[in-house]
Amino acid sequence: MTPEEFREAGHRLIDWIADYRSRVEQYPVMAQTEPGAIKARLPTAPPDAPESIDAIIADLDRIVVPGLSHWQHPRFFGYFPCNGSLASVLGDYVSTGLGVLGLAWQSSPALTEIEEVATGWLRQMLGLSDAWHGVIQDTASTSTLIALICARERTTGFCLTRGGLQAESRPLVVYTSAHSHSSVAKAALLAGFGRDNIRTVPHDGTYAMRADALAAAIDDDCRRGALPCAVVATSGSTTSTAFDPLDAIGAITADRSLWFHVDAAMAGSAMILPECRQRWYGIERADSLVVNPHKWLGTAFDCSIYYVRDPQHLVRVMSTNPSYLQSAADGRVNNYRDWGIPLGRRFRALKLWFLIREQGVARLQARLRRDIANANWLGEQVRAAAGWRLLAPISLQTVCVRHEPDGAAGDALDRHTLGWVDRVNRSGAAYLTPATLDGRWMARVSIGAEATERAHVEALWRTMRQEAER
Amino acid sequence: MTPEEFREAGHRLIDWIADYRSRVEQYPVMAQTEPGAIKARLPTAPPDAPESIDAIIADLDRIVVPGLSHWQHPRFFGYFPCNGSLASVLGDYVSTGLGVLGLAWQSSPALTEIEEVATGWLRQMLGLSDAWHGVIQDTASTSTLIALICARERTTGFCLTRGGLQAESRPLVVYTSAHSHSSVAKAALLAGFGRDNIRTVPHDGTYAMRADALAAAIDDDCRRGALPCAVVATSGSTTSTAFDPLDAIGAITADRSLWFHVDAAMAGSAMILPECRQRWYGIERADSLVVNPHKWLGTAFDCSIYYVRDPQHLVRVMSTNPSYLQSAADGRVNNYRDWGIPLGRRFRALKLWFLIREQGVARLQARLRRDIANANWLGEQVRAAAGWRLLAPISLQTVCVRHEPDGAAGDALDRHTLGWVDRVNRSGAAYLTPATLDGRWMARVSIGAEATERAHVEALWRTMRQEAER
Repeated sequence: MTPEEFREAGHRLIDWIADYRSRVEQYPVMAQTEPGAIKARLPTAPPDAPESIDAIIADLDRIVVPGLSHWQHPRFFGYFPCNGSLASVLGDYVSTGLGVLGLAWQSSPALTEIEEVATGWLRQMLGLSDAWHGVIQDTASTSTLIALICARERTTGFCLTRGGLQAESRPLVVYTSAHSHSSVAKAALLAGFGRDNIRTVPHDGTYAMRADALAAAIDDDCRRGALPCAVVATSGSTTSTAFDPLDAIGAITADRSLWFHVDAAMAGSAMILPECRQRWYGIERADSLVVNPHKWLGTAFDCSIYYVRDPQHLVRVMSTNPSYLQSAADGRVNNYRDWGIPLGRRFRALKLWFLIREQGVARLQARLRRDIANANWLGEQVRAAAGWRLLAPISLQTVCVRHEPDGAAGDALDRHTLGWVDRVNRSGAAYLTPATLDGRWMARVSIGAEATERAHVEALWRTMRQEAER
Repeated sequence: MTPEEFREAGHRLIDWIADYRSRVEQYPVMAQTEPGAIKARLPTAPPDAPESIDAIIADLDRIVVPGLSHWQHPRFFGYFPCNGSLASVLGDYVSTGLGVLGLAWQSSPALTEIEEVATGWLRQMLGLSDAWHGVIQDTASTSTLIALICARERTTGFCLTRGGLQAESRPLVVYTSAHSHSSVAKAALLAGFGRDNIRTVPHDGTYAMRADALAAAIDDDCRRGALPCAVVATSGSTTSTAFDPLDAIGAITADRSLWFHVDAAMAGSAMILPECRQRWYGIERADSLVVNPHKWLGTAFDCSIYYVRDPQHLVRVMSTNPSYLQSAADGRVNNYRDWGIPLGRRFRALKLWFLIREQGVARLQARLRRDIANANWLGEQVRAAAGWRLLAPISLQTVCVRHEPDGAAGDALDRHTLGWVDRVNRSGAAYLTPATLDGRWMARVSIGAEATERAHVEALWRTMRQEAER
C-alpha cells in the first residue's frame, strides 16, 4: 500500500471509527455471538492475491462489529472501565504510523525521552514524590511479575548470577490477600515461588488486608525457617475496590526487609483527585507500584505504568548488553529495554502525552468525580430499595449489589443472581460481570466508561430491577 | 474529544502520516540528537487546562520527528527490518479505535476468533503442519520466557503447584549457543534457572549450534546429577542469520525428553518462501516456536506469534480462573488470557489480517525475494572489492562485512570499523548497527525495509566505501 492509497483508505477508516463511536450506543453492549460463529464466516486459507480495501472494510461491518462486546459503550459496566479516549487514540495512530522502535535510546531518542516526561507528568498528577521513576509496560500482570522477580533477586542477593532460585536453600515466601487480583498469584507462580510459598493473609470486613495478620504470618514463616520475600498489597481490589492499609503494611515490610509492591492498576487513576489520596496513604513506603492509565483514566490500551524507587536495581535484574545493542550514548540515557521483559517497544508514551495535553488535568479530574458521584447515586438507590442489598463500601466507582428476594438463600440465591445478570447482559441493554464475594455470587457494577452519564446509570438501575424483580 | 472533533483531527493526522511516509527518505536515517535535548524542550509539569490539537501536532514536527531514527526509511539497514506496512497500520487503527479488550472470549468474541484465523493463515504460509496452534504475544523476548517457564513446569511435573522451582532437588539446565539472541539468556534468568545452569553449546564455522556438542553437554550434565530441561535453537541468528540444525537437535531432545524451543523471530518470515524451508528442516520436532510478523513480514509492531504443539500444557501453566472472569462459554472457546502473561489484550490480529489480505501471499513473497536478491548483490560487490571481506554466509538478508585495510588488525581494526560505521550513521545517509563476530567488530547490513530497493543498496555501498576507504 502506497502512502497515497493509505491517505485515501485512512480517511475512510477515520470516518468509520468516528461513526462507530457516535453510534456505539445503538449496539447491544455484550456480543450476541455463539462460539465459532465468526471463524465459520472466514476463509480457512490465506488469499494468494491481494484483496481490495473495500472488501476488508465491508467485513468490519459484516463480521467484526457484530462479534464485539463494546467497551466504549455508555452502558458498559463490566470488568473495569477501559477508556480509549479519542485524543489518546490519535496519539496511538501517530505511534503506529511512524513505526519506530525503542530498543535503545539511540534507536529513537524521542520515544524514550517523551516516555520519561509523560510518566513524570502522571507521577505528579498522582501526588507521588520525585523519588519514583516510571516506565510503560503492557499490563499490570507483567508489572507485577517484574516486581516479584526484582523482589526475588533482592532477597537472594542476585541468585540469577549464580544457581538461580533453584539453588536457594530457604524457601522464599510471597504475601498477599484473597482479594488481590488473580495476576498476583500468577506472577508468583511464573516467577518460580510455587503455590506452597504464597500466603493468603486474612482480610477485614471491608475486604482489606489485616496488617496484624500479615506481621503474624511473616513471623511464623521466619520461625519455621522460610525467607519472607515480598508483600503485594492492593489499592482498589477487583471485586469491591477495597484498599489495603499501605502505611501499616509498609512499616512491617521496612522492619523486616521485604519487597513492598502495590497493585493500584485500576484505582490508581483516582489519585489524580487529592480527596482520594488518603486511601493509599503510605504509598511512599512501597518499592514498586503499578497504575494503569489504560483503565479509568482514558489512555488507549495498552499503557500500564510501573513505578520504582530504585531503577538501578531494576536495570541490574533485567539488563542484557549484547554488542548489537550498544551505542555511544549508553550510560548517559535510559535504555528502557533494561526496564522490562520485551526488547522491542512501541512509542506508547504518545497516547498518554496526547491524552494529558488534550484533556488537561482539570477535565480528567472532573470526569472521575462524575463517575464517583454516579456510583454513590446508584448506591443510594440500592440502599433505599426493598429486597436489594449493598455488599461492600463504595470506595470509588464499583458498586457490589445483590437482589435478595424473600426466602432466597444459598445456591438458590446464586442461581437467581446469575440468572438476572445473564438476562441483563443478553438483553443488550447493559453489560455487568458478576463475581463472588464471601462465597456467593453478586452483581458488580463498575462505573466509569468515558461516555457514561447519570442517565445511563439510571437506565441500568431500571433494567436491573426489571430483570431481577420480574 | 468528541467523535466529530476526532473526525476532523483524525483526517489531519492521516495526511500527516501519509506525508511522513512519502518524505521519510529526506530525513537523516539516524536521529542527530544529543541526550536530554528532547526532554529539555518539554514542560516539566502537566497542563491543567486543555491544549489545542494544533499545538500538539505542531510539536510532532517541532520536537518528535527530529528526535526519531526512522525505521521505515529506505536506507535503514540497522538492527532488523521492522516494517509497519501501511495496510497493517490501518488494521491497527481499527483496533485502537474500537477500544475493545480480549480478557476472555466473551469480552469480545471477534478478537479471539480472528486471532485464531490469522495465526492459522500464517501457519499455513510458513509451511507448518496443523499440529501447531498460534497466539499473539508482544515480542519474542516474552514468547521465549513463556517457553522456558512451560519447559520448567513440564520437566518438574508442575512444580508451581507445590514448592516451585526453589523446591526442586536437581538443578534444571537450559542449552543454547553463543549466537542465540540475548533474550534467551534473559528469559532463562527471569524464569529462575540461574546463570550457572545456562550452557553455551559450541557452534561450527557457520555459527550454527553443533548437535554433537549439545548431546555431549546434556550427557555430561546427566552424569553430574543435573536435570537437562530445555534447548533453545535459533533459526536465523541476530548477528549473522545462522541456522541451527533443527532436525539433529530435535532428535536429541526427543531421545532425552527435553523441551525444544525454536527462536525464528526474525528469519521465520522467510519460511513463506518454499525455497527457504530447508533451512529450518526439522521444525516439526519442536515443542514451541516464535515467529515475529512485526519484523520483515510487515505487520505493525507488536505482533510476535508463539506457536505451540500442546496448548493444553500452556493453558495449564498460565491459567487463572477467578470468578470475575468466568463465563458460560468457557470450555467451548479459547480464552487467550491463559495463553500468555497479560490478562488484557489488544485486538492485534486485525493488523496481521489486514496485511495478509491487502497484500496477498504472492506479493509478500515477492518482496522478501527482492530483499534476498539485494543482499546477494551486495555480497558480490563486497567479494569483488579489494580490502573488503564477507565474514559469514549470506543465508537470507543480512550481510556481515568488514573493511580491512592493509596492515590493520586487532584493536586498530576495531577502531577503524567503529569509526567508519559511525561516520556513515552520522552522515544521515544510512543506518547500520555494528556487532561483534569472533570477538571483532564488523558492520552488519540488515536489508529488508519495505521501501528499500536496489538503488538504495547501491547508494549504501557507495557510502560505505567512501567512509571506510577515505
